Amino acid sequence: MIDVRPVFYALGALLCILSMFMLVPMLADLAYASDDADSFLLSACVTGFFGVALMLAFHVEDLKVDRRQGFLLTALAWFVLSGFAALPFRFSSIELSFAGAYFESMSGLTATGSSAIADLSIAPPGILLWRGLLNALGGAGIIVVALVMLPFLSVGGMQLFRAESSDRSEKLFPRIDQIAGATIAVYTGLIMLCVFVYAALGMTTFDAVVHGMTTVATGGFGNYSDSFASYDAPILWAATLFMIFGSLPLALIVLSLNRGPGVLLKDPQIRTFLVFLGCAVVLVTAWLVVMAGAPLFWAITHAAFNVVSIVSTTGFASDDYLQWGPLPVVVFLFLSTIGGCTGSTTGGLKIFRYQVMAMLLRRHRNETVMPHTVYVRRYGDRPIGDDVVRAVLVLFALYGATVICLAMGLAATGLEFETAISGAVTAVSNVGPGIGDRIGPVGSFASLSDLALWMLSFGMLVGRLEFTTVFILFSRRFWQA
Amino acid sequence: MIDVRPVFYALGALLCILSMFMLVPMLADLAYASDDADSFLLSACVTGFFGVALMLAFHVEDLKVDRRQGFLLTALAWFVLSGFAALPFRFSSIELSFAGAYFESMSGLTATGSSAIADLSIAPPGILLWRGLLNALGGAGIIVVALVMLPFLSVGGMQLFRAESSDRSEKLFPRIDQIAGATIAVYTGLIMLCVFVYAALGMTTFDAVVHGMTTVATGGFGNYSDSFASYDAPILWAATLFMIFGSLPLALIVLSLNRGPGVLLKDPQIRTFLVFLGCAVVLVTAWLVVMAGAPLFWAITHAAFNVVSIVSTTGFASDDYLQWGPLPVVVFLFLSTIGGCTGSTTGGLKIFRYQVMAMLLRRHRNETVMPHTVYVRRYGDRPIGDDVVRAVLVLFALYGATVICLAMGLAATGLEFETAISGAVTAVSNVGPGIGDRIGPVGSFASLSDLALWMLSFGMLVGRLEFTTVFILFSRRFWQA
Repeated sequence: MIDVRPVFYALGALLCILSMFMLVPMLADLAYASDDADSFLLSACVTGFFGVALMLAFHVEDLKVDRRQGFLLTALAWFVLSGFAALPFRFSSIELSFAGAYFESMSGLTATGSSAIADLSIAPPGILLWRGLLNALGGAGIIVVALVMLPFLSVGGMQLFRAESSDRSEKLFPRIDQIAGATIAVYTGLIMLCVFVYAALGMTTFDAVVHGMTTVATGGFGNYSDSFASYDAPILWAATLFMIFGSLPLALIVLSLNRGPGVLLKDPQIRTFLVFLGCAVVLVTAWLVVMAGAPLFWAITHAAFNVVSIVSTTGFASDDYLQWGPLPVVVFLFLSTIGGCTGSTTGGLKIFRYQVMAMLLRRHRNETVMPHTVYVRRYGDRPIGDDVVRAVLVLFALYGATVICLAMGLAATGLEFETAISGAVTAVSNVGPGIGDRIGPVGSFASLSDLALWMLSFGMLVGRLEFTTVFILFSRRFWQA
Repeated sequence: MIDVRPVFYALGALLCILSMFMLVPMLADLAYASDDADSFLLSACVTGFFGVALMLAFHVEDLKVDRRQGFLLTALAWFVLSGFAALPFRFSSIELSFAGAYFESMSGLTATGSSAIADLSIAPPGILLWRGLLNALGGAGIIVVALVMLPFLSVGGMQLFRAESSDRSEKLFPRIDQIAGATIAVYTGLIMLCVFVYAALGMTTFDAVVHGMTTVATGGFGNYSDSFASYDAPILWAATLFMIFGSLPLALIVLSLNRGPGVLLKDPQIRTFLVFLGCAVVLVTAWLVVMAGAPLFWAITHAAFNVVSIVSTTGFASDDYLQWGPLPVVVFLFLSTIGGCTGSTTGGLKIFRYQVMAMLLRRHRNETVMPHTVYVRRYGDRPIGDDVVRAVLVLFALYGATVICLAMGLAATGLEFETAISGAVTAVSNVGPGIGDRIGPVGSFASLSDLALWMLSFGMLVGRLEFTTVFILFSRRFWQA
C-alpha cells in the first residue's frame, strides 16, 4: 500500500497557495467595481479551508515523496486543483455549468486555452484575470513537474533530461530545487518582459497583464472572443517572439544567462524546433501568397503568428485560418500534435520525441540495407538507450490511442467528424482551438454538452501529464506493488 | 551497385503471366458480344511484347535474388505491373484518363478496391472481370511476398513469421516454395468455394465469379456502384464469412487441413482478431439498435458485414454506414487502420502489430511501477526480440507519417478535410472507401483530380508493400551499399 499522507499534505499546501492567488482577481474586481468580487472571496475561503484541513489531517514532519507517491501527487494536483479553481467560474455572473467551469479551469491549469465561455465581452475583469493566472500557474506547475518529477519517473523518455547528469557536467547548481527556483524566476521575468512589451506596443495595461501571462505560459486564454484578431502587426510579432521563448527549455535559458546565447543555439532540440517552425511558416506563407493572393507582409505576419501559436500549443489566433483553404486546415491539425521543447510549458508530443523517432527510422534504414551492423545513437552529447527509445514510442502509442478513444467518445455524444477528431487532438495536445465552425479559432467550446466537456477535461489532463502519470493510477499493479 | 539482371528478368516473366491473364476478359467480352474485346487483345500484345523483351534482354540461367534485389523486385513488380494492367482500362470504352486507369489497376493489384469509374453499370463485362482478376492476382502476389519476401527482409517485424523456423518445428513442408504453392492452392480453393456459395445463394454466375475473387482477396471491387446494397442477408452473411477467411493467415489454413481446426483457434493472432471483430460488431449493432432504432437482425447483419468489410480491408458496403450517425463515422475511420492477420491478403497495420504494441505497453507499465525488473515477452510460443519490437514501432511511425503527408498532399490539390484525411487512410490501409459524400461507401474516386489519383496510387503501393520495401529505394545508402 502507498502511504498517502505526504501526498495529501502537499495537496493541502497547493490548495492554500491557490486560495491566496484567488485574492488577486478579487482585488481586480474591487478596483474595477465589479459585483463579482464576492465569488472570489467565497472560493478562496472554501479552497483555503480544505487546504488547511488537509495539511492538518495529514501532517508530516519532513515532506518526502517516493516514486509512486510522485505519480499520485502529480495527477491529483491537476485533478483536484482544477476542481477548486473552477469555483470562481461557477460562482460568478457568467453562469457556467460545473462541467463548463471545470473544463475552463482544467484548460487554464493545463495551459490549453480552450474556453467554454461563449461571450468573453460580458465576463467581469476578475474572471479574465483569473483565467490568465490559471495559465501562468499551470505553466509554472508543469515546468517544475517536467524538471523535478517526470525525468525521475522516466515518463515518455524524459530520463534523457535527468537534471543530475546535466548537473554533474555543468556544475551550475548544486541542487535540483535551486534549478527549479531559477527556472521559475526566469519564467516570471519573461512574463513581466512580455507584459511590458505589450503595454509599450499599445495594449491596455489589463490586457497586457493577462495576455503576457497566457503568452509565455503558451496557454492561450485571451480577453476577447476573437483572440488576437484586433491587434496590429507589431503586437502580433511580439506575441510570436514570446510564444517561441515560452517553447524553449527554460532551464537552458537560465544557463544561457550565465554562458551566453550559444548554449541555446547549440541545443539539438532548439535548432530542430526553429528549423521546423521556419519551414512551416514558409509553407503557409507561400500558400497564402500563391493560392489566396495575400500581400506578402500580411501573409508572413499571420502565417508566423498562427503557426507559432499552434506549434507552441498556445492557441491564439490572429485570423480564422480555417478560411485559408484546404491545405492549411490539414496542416494546422497536424501542427497541433508537434509541441515545443521539453522543459517548457508547451504540450503536444514535443520536438525531442520526433527527433528520437527520426533516429530510429534512420537506424532502421541502415539495418534494412545492411543487417548485422551495430549502430549507436546519440542525442546531442548523450547516447540514447533502448529504454529511452521504448518510452518515446510508448508515448506516441498512448497519444494515438488516447486521441482515438477520445474522438470516439466525443462522436458518441453526437459531435460531427471534424469536431470529434480535432477536439480530441487539441485537448490531448493542450493546444486550444480545433477544426470546424464550432470549436475552430473563432468558435468556443460553449456549445458542447457537459459530457463532452468532461471527456475533453480528462483529455487535457492526461495529455498535460504525458499519459503514463495518469494511466498508471488505473493499473492494479500500481496499488499492489 | 546492384545487379539488376535477375530483377528485370523476373519482371519480364511476371509481365508475360499478366499478358496471358488479359486473354480471359477478352474471351468474356467475346462471349458477351462486347466491342471491348479488342482492347484486351491489344493490351495483351503490348504487355507480352515488353515481357518477352525484358526476359530476352536480361536472361539469367539460374534465377536467384538477394536481399536488395528482393526489395527492388517487389516494389517494381507492383509499380510496373500496375502500368501494364492499366492498359485495358485506358483502351476500353469507359474512357478513363491514364491517371484514372493506373489508379484503378493499382487499386486492383493492391487489393484496395477504390474505383475511379463513376458508373459501373455502363462498364463492359470484360472490364468488370479484369477488375476481379486484378484483385485475385494482387491478393495471390501479396500472399507470396508476405510468405517468401517480407520475413527475410525483416520488414515491419515480419521476421517473427519466418517460415524456416515454423518449418523446423512443424516439418510439414521441406521447402518454402512448397508452402507458397500449397497456400496459393488453398487461396484458389477458397475463391472457388466462395463463387459456388454466391451462385447457390442466387447471384448470377458472372457476379459470383467476380465477387468471389474480390471477396477472398479482400479486394473489394464489385460489379455495382452501390456495392453489395442490393443483396439479401444470406449473401451478406456468406460474404462476411469469406472475408473473415480471407483475413486469416493462409499458411495456417493449409496446416489446419492436415491437423484440424485447432491450429487456427490456438493461434494468438486469429483469437485476437476474432475477439476484436466481435467487440466492434457488438458496439456498432448496439448503436444501430439503441440510437437509430434499427431492427436487431437488420442491425447485426449490416454491422457484421460492414465492420468485417472494413477491418478485413475489403471495402464492400451493404449500406451507407456514414448515415448511421457520428459515432459509426469515427469508428469506421479507425477500423480502416486495423487490418487482418499477417500472411493474408489484408492491408492495414495488422493484428499482430497491435498485439506487439499492447505487450510493449504492458511491459512499460510494469517497468514504470517497478523499475529494474527484467521482463520477457512472448508471442504464442516465440520470444519477441527487441528487433521485432523496433520494426513494429517503425512501421506504426511510417504508417502515421505516410498518412499525414498524403493527407496534406491531397488537401493541397483542393480536397476538403474529410476526403483528404480519410482518402489517405483508406489508400495506405488498402481498404477502399473513405469518409464523406465524395469517396464514401456510396461514392467513387472518379471526381478526384489526376494529381490526387497519382498520390493515392502511390499511397496504395507503399501501404501494400509495408512502407520499408518502397521507401528504402529512395535511400542513397541502398544503392551504394
